[in-house]
Amino acid sequence: MTIKLFGGPKTRASMPLWYMEEKQIPYELLELDLRANKHRQPDFLAINPFGKLPVLVDSGVLTPGGELLTLFESGAILLHLAERYTDDISTAAEKALTNQWLLFANSTLSIALFVPTSRERDFPRLMAVLDQQLDPDRPLVGHCWGAADCAVQAHLAYLPLFYPEMDLSAYPVIQEVIRRTHARPAYRQVMGLG
Amino acid sequence: MTIKLFGGPKTRASMPLWYMEEKQIPYELLELDLRANKHRQPDFLAINPFGKLPVLVDSGVLTPGGELLTLFESGAILLHLAERYTDDISTAAEKALTNQWLLFANSTLSIALFVPTSRERDFPRLMAVLDQQLDPDRPLVGHCWGAADCAVQAHLAYLPLFYPEMDLSAYPVIQEVIRRTHARPAYRQVMGLG
Repeated sequence: MTIKLFGGPKTRASMPLWYMEEKQIPYELLELDLRANKHRQPDFLAINPFGKLPVLVDSGVLTPGGELLTLFESGAILLHLAERYTDDISTAAEKALTNQWLLFANSTLSIALFVPTSRERDFPRLMAVLDQQLDPDRPLVGHCWGAADCAVQAHLAYLPLFYPEMDLSAYPVIQEVIRRTHARPAYRQVMGLG
Repeated sequence: MTIKLFGGPKTRASMPLWYMEEKQIPYELLELDLRANKHRQPDFLAINPFGKLPVLVDSGVLTPGGELLTLFESGAILLHLAERYTDDISTAAEKALTNQWLLFANSTLSIALFVPTSRERDFPRLMAVLDQQLDPDRPLVGHCWGAADCAVQAHLAYLPLFYPEMDLSAYPVIQEVIRRTHARPAYRQVMGLG
């Protein structure tokens, strides 16, 4: 198999997994038992010294040093998969805007959602703007559901799972996006939602 | 001027500014007065609805809809500049690894540095690994100082400015990287370090 993905439950591995399922990109999943601290053992630290998941190994791409491309950071993995294994990105603008949304999801949105001080301070405004920017019937970039949608929707879809008491009624579009995300078969499969 | 950058003091605009100065990419800087709340006025919100800086407008690149490429998220801006206005990135592996370090800097490292709970919990291990990964004499990706170095070094170089009391003696390589960053003329100019 060309693509190996090191992942584990409750890591951002769910994003590239979901993306590869949607795009029917073949891959091999190598699940690490985080409770047994497998991500801190020497064999995995040789692959990612930071001990973080996910990590993608793409044997179809060599580094200038002749090694297999080994990539951490889920956003970088998504952009690589989109560019190399799909036809989703065809212009410089689509590439740049896809990357913008990947960084927005993994940095700006992630901090606003999951860092308590930011959640109080920045979350409401960010969500209000996002509610106006999103359209459940249109992808964020290009002509089909893609990496940008995957990253943003994956973060939003965590909200009812992580914070079931959170009131999202002020954000009707985001609610609809979450509802549709939770209904996608590939998402349900990857998230183990039966 | 093809490139316009909307920025302001103490925003991540310093990263693309530093990068463009190092790479001698011509640009026009439009500084917004954040204290006067200019980033929350309708004319800027029409450019970036989230009201965040930096924003790059590249009149050399049109979106599929025929509009000028307008990009937020400093990491996405850096990758776009590197790909379009330099020869730094020549292979799929270099591109993917550059993006990995951009996401690492703006997401993982940024959270570990600037979010108090993470700074206590994740910061020491992240810094210890980074100290082993960095080499002051070699770029992170490719053959010359590039976007990946810019993003990681910019974040590290903030440390003594934001936390002058922080003891970095356990991280000698990082200390050297910070020292060399603070000595670069383009960095000093952009940061207003006299």
